Amino acid sequence: MSERAYLREVGLRDGLQLIRGDLSTAHKLQWIEEEAAAGVAEIEVTSFVPFKSFPIFADANEVATAALQIPGLLPSGLTPNARGAVAAFATGLRKVNYVISASEAHSQANVRRSTAEAMVDFARIVAARAENGLEKTVTLSFGIATCFGCTIQGAVAEDLVYRIAEEGVALGADEVMIADTVGYAHPLQVERIFAGVLARLEDIPIAAHFHDTRGLGLANIAAAARVGIRRFDASLGGLGGCPHAPGATGNVVFEDAAYLLETMGLPTGIDLPKLIALRRKVETWLPEERFSGAIARAGVPKNYHPAAD
Amino acid sequence: MSERAYLREVGLRDGLQLIRGDLSTAHKLQWIEEEAAAGVAEIEVTSFVPFKSFPIFADANEVATAALQIPGLLPSGLTPNARGAVAAFATGLRKVNYVISASEAHSQANVRRSTAEAMVDFARIVAARAENGLEKTVTLSFGIATCFGCTIQGAVAEDLVYRIAEEGVALGADEVMIADTVGYAHPLQVERIFAGVLARLEDIPIAAHFHDTRGLGLANIAAAARVGIRRFDASLGGLGGCPHAPGATGNVVFEDAAYLLETMGLPTGIDLPKLIALRRKVETWLPEERFSGAIARAGVPKNYHPAAD
Repeated sequence: MSERAYLREVGLRDGLQLIRGDLSTAHKLQWIEEEAAAGVAEIEVTSFVPFKSFPIFADANEVATAALQIPGLLPSGLTPNARGAVAAFATGLRKVNYVISASEAHSQANVRRSTAEAMVDFARIVAARAENGLEKTVTLSFGIATCFGCTIQGAVAEDLVYRIAEEGVALGADEVMIADTVGYAHPLQVERIFAGVLARLEDIPIAAHFHDTRGLGLANIAAAARVGIRRFDASLGGLGGCPHAPGATGNVVFEDAAYLLETMGLPTGIDLPKLIALRRKVETWLPEERFSGAIARAGVPKNYHPAAD
Repeated sequence: MSERAYLREVGLRDGLQLIRGDLSTAHKLQWIEEEAAAGVAEIEVTSFVPFKSFPIFADANEVATAALQIPGLLPSGLTPNARGAVAAFATGLRKVNYVISASEAHSQANVRRSTAEAMVDFARIVAARAENGLEKTVTLSFGIATCFGCTIQGAVAEDLVYRIAEEGVALGADEVMIADTVGYAHPLQVERIFAGVLARLEDIPIAAHFHDTRGLGLANIAAAARVGIRRFDASLGGLGGCPHAPGATGNVVFEDAAYLLETMGLPTGIDLPKLIALRRKVETWLPEERFSGAIARAGVPKNYHPAAD
């Protein structure tokens, strides 16, 4: 493997949406700046959700605007609907992320809409991009949650995942993100589903979003990388969870994922010591949160060389 | 994959050798009995090391003798030399495990012998088995430590690993165990080295022993399973470490490894709820130790079915 891998930080969105405490705008911006300086090229910096329900994202405009000033960084923002997308467009963000649930039960629990209604909302986001004349400048990422099963309804049909992915692309998605929102994915399933998505969507970048709820986050990244996936979501220290995934105490640990990908011969551009130094700071800013991960504790092996060396 | 996988518990040896507290013989036997009742077919129950240095193993004879009474269980014991092997043979154990270090530096630090001297010791163990007339009744497992790198010397040549494995088999080993003693292994390296060992030792059972020090334990099991390995070491709750592997706070978590293998379509015969109930007890017996793992915290997915179903 002589290509590179792309790790996207989602801790400032997926990681923060359920924290008990608070994180100041200044600390968020320091996190973003120092992570960009450590080589992270893409960060989901905020979420354009209703501020009343998620006061942690009340500074969405300020964070997005400041993140856009950082050279070499692609900041993106999550939106649950067209209203949020318009707000995201207004900040100047060049990438906006939307997520639909493959599981009907999860869709209803999470956003009180059916999967079909959520697809209509994506069409509205695409239309809003066109109305704002942003087709050529703003990338729309189309995420699909609960692709590997759902804590509420159990199994999710693989054909449904493929159909939703194809519909999203037909509507205008520039990237498809396949998510294991609840930590149900396992390696053979990961290889099968990502191979299926890649075969159907040859010209679209495909990203993977795993949670480490059942310990298989890194094994799943390795499996996805094996079939050709090169874009992965993760969060510093594994910060994050999901309200409808009991015990789902974390995204994949960013620094561990970077280490894994480097060992697989896929350069990430990440400076691990800088990233770990930043993690230590973020831990002090969020003292009530649980941070996970092995590389921050054990360090890299003595004979370790990043893949780009 | 329609075969099954074999998970061997090493917590009573690798897990206990460095604990701060103590574990009574009665608790050890309860651990062994309840784990056997949960479907674990092989347990490394003790170590025949000098009791003065490792008082935790002063009850080696008693533990081995009692474990031999459990129907359906294959108990084994570790020995560092021929003297320990003779003691193990005397208990009636049908399987005795020996480990040599591929890394010279690790061998000297761990047992104050060169790798070549340790190989001579294995020849002495084989000879002692013959002298006791046990060639047909006692299995000798030949483990190779630090096959994926060493915290002291760094890189370990893969050809050296293959040569040591072949020498062990030529001397009389019935099984070869390839160990990542210090948690340096990564998936592509695992696939390469195990494929190399399997190609050279076609008729010998090959086992894998990973540590989760850098978070890749389960990814490495998945990688080894992919190239055909079906025997894996792990310890309940990931208990264990290595004196010459700083920060090496754990074997692969047994219950998580069982879950992973089942998701890969490889039945393990393990009853996960029983295993997790036992883990809760062992945690109370060893309150100073750090227990890891995801399945014990998050539970199995809603749509989970063991591979044998």
